[in-house]
Amino acid sequence: MKNILKLTITVLSVFVAFTSCNNSGKSDKKSGALAGNVAEKVYVAPGEHDEFYAFISGGFSGQLSVYGLPSGRLFKVIPVFSQDPEKAYGYNEETKPMLNTSHGFVPWDDAHHPDISQTEGVIDGRWVFINGNNTPRIAKIDLSTFETTEIIEIPNSAGNHSSSFVTENTEYVVAGTRFSVPIPQKDMPIKDYKGNFKGSLTFISVDPEHGHMDIKFQLIMPGFDYDLSHPGRGKSHGWFFFSTYNTEEASTLMEVNASQNDKDFIAAVNWKKIEEYVNNGGGTIMPTNYAHNVYDESTHMATSTMKKEVLTVNPLDVPGAVYLMPTPKSPHGCDVDPTGEYIVGSGKLSANLTVHSFTKMLAAIENEKFAGDAYGIPIINFDDSLAGVVEQPGLGPLHTEFDDKGNAYTTFFISSEVVKWKVGTWEVVDRQPCYYSVGHLMIPGGNSQKPWGKYVVAMNKITKDRYLPTGPEVTQSAQLYDISGDKMELLLDFPTIGEPHYAAGCPADLIKPRSKKIFNLEDNNHPYVAKSEADTKVVRDGNIVHIYMTTIRSHFSPDNIEGVRVGDKVYFHVTNLEQDYDVPHGVSMIGANTSELLIMPGQTETFLWEPKQEGVWPFYCTDFCSALHQEMQGYVRVSAANANTPLKWSLGEDID
Amino acid sequence: MKNILKLTITVLSVFVAFTSCNNSGKSDKKSGALAGNVAEKVYVAPGEHDEFYAFISGGFSGQLSVYGLPSGRLFKVIPVFSQDPEKAYGYNEETKPMLNTSHGFVPWDDAHHPDISQTEGVIDGRWVFINGNNTPRIAKIDLSTFETTEIIEIPNSAGNHSSSFVTENTEYVVAGTRFSVPIPQKDMPIKDYKGNFKGSLTFISVDPEHGHMDIKFQLIMPGFDYDLSHPGRGKSHGWFFFSTYNTEEASTLMEVNASQNDKDFIAAVNWKKIEEYVNNGGGTIMPTNYAHNVYDESTHMATSTMKKEVLTVNPLDVPGAVYLMPTPKSPHGCDVDPTGEYIVGSGKLSANLTVHSFTKMLAAIENEKFAGDAYGIPIINFDDSLAGVVEQPGLGPLHTEFDDKGNAYTTFFISSEVVKWKVGTWEVVDRQPCYYSVGHLMIPGGNSQKPWGKYVVAMNKITKDRYLPTGPEVTQSAQLYDISGDKMELLLDFPTIGEPHYAAGCPADLIKPRSKKIFNLEDNNHPYVAKSEADTKVVRDGNIVHIYMTTIRSHFSPDNIEGVRVGDKVYFHVTNLEQDYDVPHGVSMIGANTSELLIMPGQTETFLWEPKQEGVWPFYCTDFCSALHQEMQGYVRVSAANANTPLKWSLGEDID
Repeated sequence: MKNILKLTITVLSVFVAFTSCNNSGKSDKKSGALAGNVAEKVYVAPGEHDEFYAFISGGFSGQLSVYGLPSGRLFKVIPVFSQDPEKAYGYNEETKPMLNTSHGFVPWDDAHHPDISQTEGVIDGRWVFINGNNTPRIAKIDLSTFETTEIIEIPNSAGNHSSSFVTENTEYVVAGTRFSVPIPQKDMPIKDYKGNFKGSLTFISVDPEHGHMDIKFQLIMPGFDYDLSHPGRGKSHGWFFFSTYNTEEASTLMEVNASQNDKDFIAAVNWKKIEEYVNNGGGTIMPTNYAHNVYDESTHMATSTMKKEVLTVNPLDVPGAVYLMPTPKSPHGCDVDPTGEYIVGSGKLSANLTVHSFTKMLAAIENEKFAGDAYGIPIINFDDSLAGVVEQPGLGPLHTEFDDKGNAYTTFFISSEVVKWKVGTWEVVDRQPCYYSVGHLMIPGGNSQKPWGKYVVAMNKITKDRYLPTGPEVTQSAQLYDISGDKMELLLDFPTIGEPHYAAGCPADLIKPRSKKIFNLEDNNHPYVAKSEADTKVVRDGNIVHIYMTTIRSHFSPDNIEGVRVGDKVYFHVTNLEQDYDVPHGVSMIGANTSELLIMPGQTETFLWEPKQEGVWPFYCTDFCSALHQEMQGYVRVSAANANTPLKWSLGEDID
Repeated sequence: MKNILKLTITVLSVFVAFTSCNNSGKSDKKSGALAGNVAEKVYVAPGEHDEFYAFISGGFSGQLSVYGLPSGRLFKVIPVFSQDPEKAYGYNEETKPMLNTSHGFVPWDDAHHPDISQTEGVIDGRWVFINGNNTPRIAKIDLSTFETTEIIEIPNSAGNHSSSFVTENTEYVVAGTRFSVPIPQKDMPIKDYKGNFKGSLTFISVDPEHGHMDIKFQLIMPGFDYDLSHPGRGKSHGWFFFSTYNTEEASTLMEVNASQNDKDFIAAVNWKKIEEYVNNGGGTIMPTNYAHNVYDESTHMATSTMKKEVLTVNPLDVPGAVYLMPTPKSPHGCDVDPTGEYIVGSGKLSANLTVHSFTKMLAAIENEKFAGDAYGIPIINFDDSLAGVVEQPGLGPLHTEFDDKGNAYTTFFISSEVVKWKVGTWEVVDRQPCYYSVGHLMIPGGNSQKPWGKYVVAMNKITKDRYLPTGPEVTQSAQLYDISGDKMELLLDFPTIGEPHYAAGCPADLIKPRSKKIFNLEDNNHPYVAKSEADTKVVRDGNIVHIYMTTIRSHFSPDNIEGVRVGDKVYFHVTNLEQDYDVPHGVSMIGANTSELLIMPGQTETFLWEPKQEGVWPFYCTDFCSALHQEMQGYVRVSAANANTPLKWSLGEDID
């Protein structure tokens, strides 16, 4: 083991040295008119709106954040895979089921790749999908409410990384396993990985009207690590491309052992062919167990259903459906240009950038001249699919996006820069440093036929001295570049919540007109709704107490309650009667072992309170709602477990 | 009850109308050179640093956020009272005790008023204190690590609102109850509130060297609502001032019933006199139960201790210690000017702003001419302490801060503006609209003898159309004004995380030089630390398994583990061996019912995993750490509960 470790240190010292950038990192300070010019480009004056929405993954925060461009301002952190005490997500009774999995309640995940729904290859602004990497899941966020409305767990997967990208009519959202595992899971020695562990690529159909997700099929693949993916589009619509690494099938000290092969693969999957195969009864039903969680806007509640089987497909059973394109060393990004002709594989340990041609790939398949196979899957000759090479553009290529003028933009983690190059001629035309160690980048419309090439956002992994320090933990950060001219121009450093892992963006006008302002009270079908103060009441059922409560500026109904006992489970079902925009109310109870509620107009939410001690305990509104917000409070009297204090409630008069 | 409700609607329609601002809310769009000028004032070029830190309370998020001014950029959300899945706060074994209370584990609170420590009346940048309003607590954040290091629960309190302000040498941080309750708590009818419910004002001593907090005494006061407070300074050092409302002692429909009295009070407390009294053995020890939670930077762990008694003081037992100054209708803010002479009471239902004189108050006390008493506490004649009145400055005054040129700035919620007036002449000299419904405002150094009067931040309650919409829930927001000239100038709208309830700020140079970059590995005394890969191991103790694990770019040691069984409680104790700035590692395990860990250089953190199913399960690094981050992973083999798979672990070689 010692020799291997020494080797590691030698091999990696190069990368470590590069990532420890000693450069001061300050851009040339512009002064006078020039500084004003740059400042004006990102300044959105008070009351004006940003031009683009950017949905930036929170990475290891598990959430999805909504930013405006060019200002870089954060408008909302949408809770997706992690609990959020501010918004009660994962704490209130309505949303707890959203975080259910086959492993039980999981309060966190690692969110990675948001992708906005498309129609005919163009972003349509209806939903945004995002993957949970740790406990494999795909979530859907509704862009009329900006709330997570569906989460589906992915069985037979571990490290749901090459996800969640959509096809050009949102027929499917795709999930691919990063870590191969025994499928189905079983107790076996780790050293027997090779040939026994498997990967899975999952195609989840999306209902075109309601967006409901359903696993259509899972392709069971060789035991590689599946890293990233993108759909074909235009001429390559019907195909999906997945990068792989660890084709060595190593299981320990991967930084050395998974970096041995000169080339790994991009897997090309003809999903239309497999769809036809399964529509005709193909595939094998495998028993499994995974959660499907759906939030219903009518009842304001989520339900979790455990599903028990999944349709699996062996690629060898569908000839012509899956091919492997060799791609130099450990390709990470796997990006398809707007025309659908070019597939860029970013071999992260490679000196060059490899671009495959879809047309050449088809010709090679047609000619049936292969370089061999991997577990029976045909391997295309490297040169047969090769469209071109961008020669020595930088160190550590990761990801590529495209503008609407035939240019590609690739990030280089080690040399810490964005490099602009011409699709087709492969020549480098510009480069700009990133501060520091850029991962993904995003151009609005990047994963579509229609990019809006005005800005690129670089999402960085290291910030160090870029901002005022905040102790050992420093902020994560993104950088905004103007790409409307020949040369890129760095405009702004803006910090982000969580790790800005990847992002999806589009012009504001695609989403803004559809944004809801309130929930209509009359459409509220929550089982414990009170639609007026006349409907409020307190009901005891054994040691369960249901409080049907309402809020309106500035009181609760009821606001005095007696007859609750130590040991009761008290459910506060609180309906916000307001029907105006931006008039939420909050509610919290001293000592409750859960979060507050933050209730939007017309909505009902529920928290549980288990009083442990006799006394008179206050509750109050947590969202400053009016000039008399501070007076919006109430009391619950708690008597002994065996007391006979009668159950009574009131507003505006004493309880006798 | 119906008549009362009708009255409410009539009385309040005025306020509702005012808060529903129909104004487009857009500032005059500046163009050309003028726009550039404003843009430049808030633009902090890439690589440059902001001039001020602003610590903005997250309000109902329970956290404290660190922003830079003038850019309005968010650098860190410091978890304080709420769980944070991104940073493992409240999820890892080390920080769970921080959220312990007498009510058990409470994962959320409503954070309100940050205040930075002071030496000789000037901000010293060592700690920032903040109160939890719902389950009464005071937290201390260390400004070298930007981490919460201490939380003390406040017994005999409910709605810890008039908190957490510090005296001018940080002798005390103060907590005051908003809701009065039975003290001690007992089961009694709510209608018997009057005369029986009490408020408490708590003085928590702060150790001048280490900052350790300890409750020195609690003053048991009449059953009013104690709303806000500020310390005396300079000439009034030794006193503390608390605003009250609900001197009606109502308990239901407070928006009507607590708005009846023409005047409520500002309570003036001579804490030096009470300190002397208790130092001489005065006061009564009351049995109680509250949590005191301390994070130890040496062991990297928090411990929670339940304390069982508190020293209470009856104000009637300390003659000359407490007085009441009548202040028109339901005063909210209670703000002391930099000289310590003036105490501004913002009667939120009053047409005018009332300013008390400390000198006149002392004279009135000296003369012993009182207007009567409330529960034995002397009431000073209104005119005797009155310094002046700002006549009809706006509607719904809430809070006042001061610059260094003798000006005061008061927020008006209903008329939605900041109004600048001259201290001493009481004349209004400028006003600027806020978008919309401003609550607190902040000038760096606001609660001190030395304000830095360059900017004021207005923290608003309503934003509606100010930003791109995000469904029914819209962002919270602050606005930045330049106050360096005679007239205020609106520079920037910037959205905030959570509710920007209140803020504290100071020049960056007071904090920046003391910010830690790493934790020294050699000083790490965590009981389960592994300080090198040679120290890593896996130890079984019954069904408890302790994994002593390390991280370094880019592998875990060990990364293959076998011999874990279904039903085990597996503790991953993970030490980050890195000793460079900004090289955290993360770790997560598929299906764990907790969050990831985000481990700073030199730190040890622990998560619990309870495997429920046989198989081979992956873990991986969640924070992109190097070019080979994606290879930083490992596997744990889980056998049946009764299996005899031997406990083994490895790195770089197979387990035999």
